[in-house]
Amino acid sequence: MKQTITLDTMSHGVTYAKGFQAIGIQAGLKKSGKHDLALIYTDKKAAVAGTFTQNKVAAAPVYVSKETVATGTAHAIISNSGCANACTGAQGLADAHTMAKATAEALHCSPNDIIVGSTGIIGQQLPINDITKAIPTLVNSLSFEGTELAGKAILTTDTYSKTASTHFTIDGKDIHMGAIAKGSGMIRPNMATMLCYITTDIAITPTLLQKALHACVNKSFNMISVDGDMSTNDMAIVLANGAAENTLIDTENSDFYLFQEALMAITVSLAKQIAADGEGASKFITINVEGATDFENAKLVGMTIANSPLVKTAFFGEDPNWGRLICAAGYAGAPMNPDTTVLKIGGIIIFKNGMGAVYNEKKLQDIMSAHDITVTVELDEGEAQATVWTCDLTYDYVKINGEYHT
Amino acid sequence: MKQTITLDTMSHGVTYAKGFQAIGIQAGLKKSGKHDLALIYTDKKAAVAGTFTQNKVAAAPVYVSKETVATGTAHAIISNSGCANACTGAQGLADAHTMAKATAEALHCSPNDIIVGSTGIIGQQLPINDITKAIPTLVNSLSFEGTELAGKAILTTDTYSKTASTHFTIDGKDIHMGAIAKGSGMIRPNMATMLCYITTDIAITPTLLQKALHACVNKSFNMISVDGDMSTNDMAIVLANGAAENTLIDTENSDFYLFQEALMAITVSLAKQIAADGEGASKFITINVEGATDFENAKLVGMTIANSPLVKTAFFGEDPNWGRLICAAGYAGAPMNPDTTVLKIGGIIIFKNGMGAVYNEKKLQDIMSAHDITVTVELDEGEAQATVWTCDLTYDYVKINGEYHT
Repeated sequence: MKQTITLDTMSHGVTYAKGFQAIGIQAGLKKSGKHDLALIYTDKKAAVAGTFTQNKVAAAPVYVSKETVATGTAHAIISNSGCANACTGAQGLADAHTMAKATAEALHCSPNDIIVGSTGIIGQQLPINDITKAIPTLVNSLSFEGTELAGKAILTTDTYSKTASTHFTIDGKDIHMGAIAKGSGMIRPNMATMLCYITTDIAITPTLLQKALHACVNKSFNMISVDGDMSTNDMAIVLANGAAENTLIDTENSDFYLFQEALMAITVSLAKQIAADGEGASKFITINVEGATDFENAKLVGMTIANSPLVKTAFFGEDPNWGRLICAAGYAGAPMNPDTTVLKIGGIIIFKNGMGAVYNEKKLQDIMSAHDITVTVELDEGEAQATVWTCDLTYDYVKINGEYHT
Repeated sequence: MKQTITLDTMSHGVTYAKGFQAIGIQAGLKKSGKHDLALIYTDKKAAVAGTFTQNKVAAAPVYVSKETVATGTAHAIISNSGCANACTGAQGLADAHTMAKATAEALHCSPNDIIVGSTGIIGQQLPINDITKAIPTLVNSLSFEGTELAGKAILTTDTYSKTASTHFTIDGKDIHMGAIAKGSGMIRPNMATMLCYITTDIAITPTLLQKALHACVNKSFNMISVDGDMSTNDMAIVLANGAAENTLIDTENSDFYLFQEALMAITVSLAKQIAADGEGASKFITINVEGATDFENAKLVGMTIANSPLVKTAFFGEDPNWGRLICAAGYAGAPMNPDTTVLKIGGIIIFKNGMGAVYNEKKLQDIMSAHDITVTVELDEGEAQATVWTCDLTYDYVKINGEYHT
């Protein structure tokens, strides 16, 4: 009988999988004095996979972590907030390497076993001495209950920590998977200002781990938009340490697909949490595009609507302004014909036959006043579907990003 | 000796060119009671050219006006605000035709001689009876001094009317050219919620008029962005009635290029006025991209920066946040290398060699606090250049678009 993957009601985070410890501490990188340095560690070496920002201006830690992913295995992830270590030149790259090296020394492994992540303001040099000074404490504090503090320590303008976990069985062995993530502003497809760390005790080859992660990121983190900006620091990392002792997954068999399904559930959940916590957001908006010629065109229509400031401000104002929705669908560039396109909000048809539909205004207003709103765009061009998640554009977005902040 | 084209210090608008009359009246389409119906007329039939929105959801008047442009000649432009007549189905198209027909009857010409433009809320049926009832008054009010009222009557959320004029000499004949335009929200390349009406008394063939307009729109209206949205109603129209009695321009000779230069000056001026009057804007931002592989890539980098909400809010906050600028340049998709890219604000180098530069903070703060700010992006990829104009993203943008308004 096929197993059904469901997320745990309460997430167990990155210390759910066997053999993983984590912690977050206050290293003094954030002026606010909040937690700002996190460590995730597995004593048993793990297969590692990663996807990274496609921004040509990539931060120093991205280069370091790509090298580690290329080796196929890793022991730990060290991740700071308060400083992105992006646009910091040779000094920044040296600092990111120092961060890996100091962590490796304290954990008695190789610098090539360390993933480094950073998030925060671009263009400031990393306070590397504060970090190296804090690393012994960080390592000594590692705990099998440390996921919550680790989750806290990677946040920036996020209002809450993103986390999810799930479990399933392979070969009669219990497999655990859990994650922490951050992301709030600068969120858009092809990764975002987003850090996502996933741990699992499944035994799988690095190649298949990378393949599964790639497939999942394309349908999760690459389907969200807060403001259309793509960050310099994004990464999604999975560590799979094999501590569950299932037969190693080294072909695309049914176990692989079950694992991928679980990974998809985790990444989609995190992506939705990130979109819902967009900077200043007061609404969480799901955009389903159906009947497109192919997935790329369905996504294009969904993302164009999600990125439209006019659409986003309309949702902020709880205004069912279908004119802005159909307008954005029209300039997306994908095949579409307004005369055969149907628009729905919360299941209510608001546009068809090229014009506004007659609907129950009171009922629609109730839908618009809710926190979670679903828009459906039914094209008549083909069979493909895509779902995009976004949030509204509010005064608070302008406030958060229009004032100096460090 | 080559003539130098300069704009008139005070614009004479669409009634500057010989033989053109215009007017704007209050037809009751705007709830505010403001001017909402405009007419521009030339007794002598004019060559006509037009460029239109590329949105797949085009408004009814766009279809009607395209037919008129296809005939090569026209007598008049009728244009209303208060209702876009977009997404209004068969009724909307019939209304746009009625608008042309009623105008033609009152002016004793053919409906095929009439350009129809509309702007306002999408999805509401045109109050066509109010318009047809007002047309006799409109026609009777036509005046050689009517440009100011015509300019007023095409506005929506604009805070001022956009206008420009210029004059030059061909064959010893004085050539006049003037324009009115509107556009504020929903402004982005490939046209905008933008109506632009240009009149000139030059004698030129419709084919060459279209060619010149196309070239000018690509370097003016297609280079501005307020919010990245593309409207359903955009059009730029030129009427050239030949009343100046120059030798007909029917080849791409020096007279043609002089004319095109004048048309470029007019359209660039209007484009900049539109960007500066972006909804809620408090800053006018010029983005010069240099050293790109080609014009399209230069434009791509400039438009990506111009469309970044993080960049736009930083300018609102007078924050010289070069991290957001270089980040947007990095995800534009055009060839660029952060290590060889130089960023300047107001001529001050703020980023080079892959990291922030040392600069006079006080001097830069003075530049950031001004209304007009110039950003220069020097790539090291080639010789191509592009200039893009935009504005900041403010609380007022959210206010204007986040509240119901009609």
